[in-house]
Amino acid sequence: MTKQAALPVLEIFGPTFQGEGMVIGRKTMFVRTAGCDYSCSWCDSAFTWDGSAKDDIRMLTPEEILAELEEIAPDNFSHVTISGGNPALLKNVGLLIEKLHSRGVEAALETQGSRWQDWFLTVDDLTISPKPPSSLMNTNFAVLDDIVARLRAGNRLSSASLKVVVYDEADFDYARSIHRRYPDVAFYLQTGNDETGEDANTANLASHLLSRYERLVDWTMADKAMNKARVLPQLHTLVWGNQRGV
Amino acid sequence: MTKQAALPVLEIFGPTFQGEGMVIGRKTMFVRTAGCDYSCSWCDSAFTWDGSAKDDIRMLTPEEILAELEEIAPDNFSHVTISGGNPALLKNVGLLIEKLHSRGVEAALETQGSRWQDWFLTVDDLTISPKPPSSLMNTNFAVLDDIVARLRAGNRLSSASLKVVVYDEADFDYARSIHRRYPDVAFYLQTGNDETGEDANTANLASHLLSRYERLVDWTMADKAMNKARVLPQLHTLVWGNQRGV
Ligand code: SF4
Ligand code: SF4
Repeated sequence: MTKQAALPVLEIFGPTFQGEGMVIGRKTMFVRTAGCDYSCSWCDSAFTWDGSAKDDIRMLTPEEILAELEEIAPDNFSHVTISGGNPALLKNVGLLIEKLHSRGVEAALETQGSRWQDWFLTVDDLTISPKPPSSLMNTNFAVLDDIVARLRAGNRLSSASLKVVVYDEADFDYARSIHRRYPDVAFYLQTGNDETGEDANTANLASHLLSRYERLVDWTMADKAMNKARVLPQLHTLVWGNQRGV
Repeated sequence: MTKQAALPVLEIFGPTFQGEGMVIGRKTMFVRTAGCDYSCSWCDSAFTWDGSAKDDIRMLTPEEILAELEEIAPDNFSHVTISGGNPALLKNVGLLIEKLHSRGVEAALETQGSRWQDWFLTVDDLTISPKPPSSLMNTNFAVLDDIVARLRAGNRLSSASLKVVVYDEADFDYARSIHRRYPDVAFYLQTGNDETGEDANTANLASHLLSRYERLVDWTMADKAMNKARVLPQLHTLVWGNQRGV
């Protein structure tokens, strides 16, 4: 395989645990790709697309990525989470997933759902996370409908979930509309982190985020449209605050 | 259906969220049954079996339980968690699950795995939680092997998980042995709560439990036998402390 198969990689780290969503708590490695077609107001990984880390981007083939994973965690992982940015911009992610599967390693991936890739059908834990109004982004529902329809047609909905991050009541309304639109897709609500500075005190931050989580829980419990929802905080932020690379 | 179908019920409450295990975060109602064949040293629901709440036990039929659930949360749930004590002592739980299913409501249940019931095959989210050494209980592996074998034969492993609560390193060793023994069953590690007094300050308790969770995460990340594990705290305790009935 040549450099034509390469991916723009910003971070490779682990093992750590997945702090969010459908496989929360799972021991996993992280591969973070560069580039995003969105610019969410509260993006917690803006360095992947705002140019601030562009000198850190490395073009790596799937073999090189796997070799690096095995070097930093020899025999110590069976699950890799591909995050971004938006990894769905990258056709070659499909080759990385193939390579992981060939070693018996599972792959999880999160994307906002702005673009389809055929390799979505091969992701073991696919999280589609459309962005609510507070992000200042607009959802393209034609694309999102198409993604869900293709996953359903490919009999892959059981490996997928929808996740909406909620900062305020308008976001919660948006979340409800997403859940209503795709009632047969596993649905997760997640607390938005409104204090993303790396210098925030971790204990104070945890207590602040737990009270925000409690508020989201209250909204969910009061809302009959949310009976099938799962509502979760970001566990890694509760434990480690806003540090990168843990 | 007569009182012959009745179950000894100690608490019915909700909606709230499931704070633990395979459906963590799920909006759910709780039905807590009385009675346990164990007496774990750190049991957080000893009132179900130590006689202290025996005057609160009500003998309720599945119809009566469903009526009460609908009264306290009309149209506001689609999932019920049956907990104890050990609900696997009660043959009639199968009738309650049938009744819930007939209304389109899912059922989750947790048991320590000391006893089989045929209705295990009908539980949507079945958590088997064998007790580690710190509980001072002994696992009957003949029974546990049989339970897992029957779930496998019934093609129900995808609706089941194993969960081990860990207080110390001996418990972690026990957890590893359980995961090794049943490698094809979804496996969860959970932080043990060593401060179960109802008067503990919730914020201090959360910070204490998060540091214990971090320690369990560290052990899991360092251990190659745990690559497929999921490691989780008790979310409800982080939010609400040790209060009952939330
Ligand atoms: S989609 Fe994700 S990576 Fe892209 S800007 Fe939004 S939060 Fe950031
Ligand atoms: S098995 Fe559960 S309910 Fe029974 S004593 Fe142990 S912790 Fe308590």
